[in-house]
Amino acid sequence: MAKINTMQELFVDSLRDLYDAEQQIINALPKMEQAASSAQLKSAFRTHLQQTETQRQRLEQIFREMGMQPSGKTCKGMQGLIKENEEMMAMIGEPAVLDATLIAGAQKVEHYEIAAYGTLRTMATELGMENAKRLLQQTLDEEGATDHLLTQIAEGTGTRRGINERAVATDGGSAGS
Amino acid sequence: MAKINTMQELFVDSLRDLYDAEQQIINALPKMEQAASSAQLKSAFRTHLQQTETQRQRLEQIFREMGMQPSGKTCKGMQGLIKENEEMMAMIGEPAVLDATLIAGAQKVEHYEIAAYGTLRTMATELGMENAKRLLQQTLDEEGATDHLLTQIAEGTGTRRGINERAVATDGGSAGS
Repeated sequence: MAKINTMQELFVDSLRDLYDAEQQIINALPKMEQAASSAQLKSAFRTHLQQTETQRQRLEQIFREMGMQPSGKTCKGMQGLIKENEEMMAMIGEPAVLDATLIAGAQKVEHYEIAAYGTLRTMATELGMENAKRLLQQTLDEEGATDHLLTQIAEGTGTRRGINERAVATDGGSAGS
Repeated sequence: MAKINTMQELFVDSLRDLYDAEQQIINALPKMEQAASSAQLKSAFRTHLQQTETQRQRLEQIFREMGMQPSGKTCKGMQGLIKENEEMMAMIGEPAVLDATLIAGAQKVEHYEIAAYGTLRTMATELGMENAKRLLQQTLDEEGATDHLLTQIAEGTGTRRGINERAVATDGGSAGS
């Protein structure tokens, strides 16, 4: 395991961690889209897959600008989140409750990225990497918007009923109160 | 593995996941405090440990109000985040860079909690559990404030130099640019 002694080394290590995290998300999103019942949620996952591919490309651009080949380092944090999501997906029979779970899991993934991109953007600022900072901020803004959209799908907006309300309305054929 | 079919069952499962996550954080924080060099950061971890113990008690209160014994379910998401943090801590020799890493790791943990508590609070609202909603919102507010405090410690405020700036200023005895 390589030792990290400088902020630049920490930046590169964090960049590699996020590069792997994005790849894990790209692999997970089609399964989440397939598991979803709500057309609005399916569409949100599909759109976010395209966005995630662009986000991965931004990371590749940052690697190249530093004169490095893009490479990942297994992101254990994202592995845990995705494993948890997959286990939850396997436990749920009722479609509306499954949709609520998919949103909850996706928001944990989004928040991992919000924390990780926020840190990386701040490091880029300290290191005087202006273009990297700009690219990371773009992704950070997109992650914030996706998190907000998922909250809206869960809670509903205006006259559109949210997924949570629909999930509560189902009794799942058992004794839920 | 118990099947989940109703929103109430999903709420209980998520509550058990978070109860275990809080316990994992309570175990991790003293190690993070010990690893930190900055007195400000050590103090933030110490304060957050007390806060986390209160947050765990709030979850116990929700279990009791539902007529249940508090019990956890291994939170794989938090396991991944803490494993990642421990590996990072082992890789870093330079104290100021280690402090920057500890903050980055803690912010990932905070964001997991922000996502999880936000979902649980929304579910409590949908299920008409007013007191649970109030307790979960208290914790959510504290997590947001802790995340903000960690950002301030990293970036500095007013005349106080941030940890990131100090980390960039060290060359770690190696060839950092």
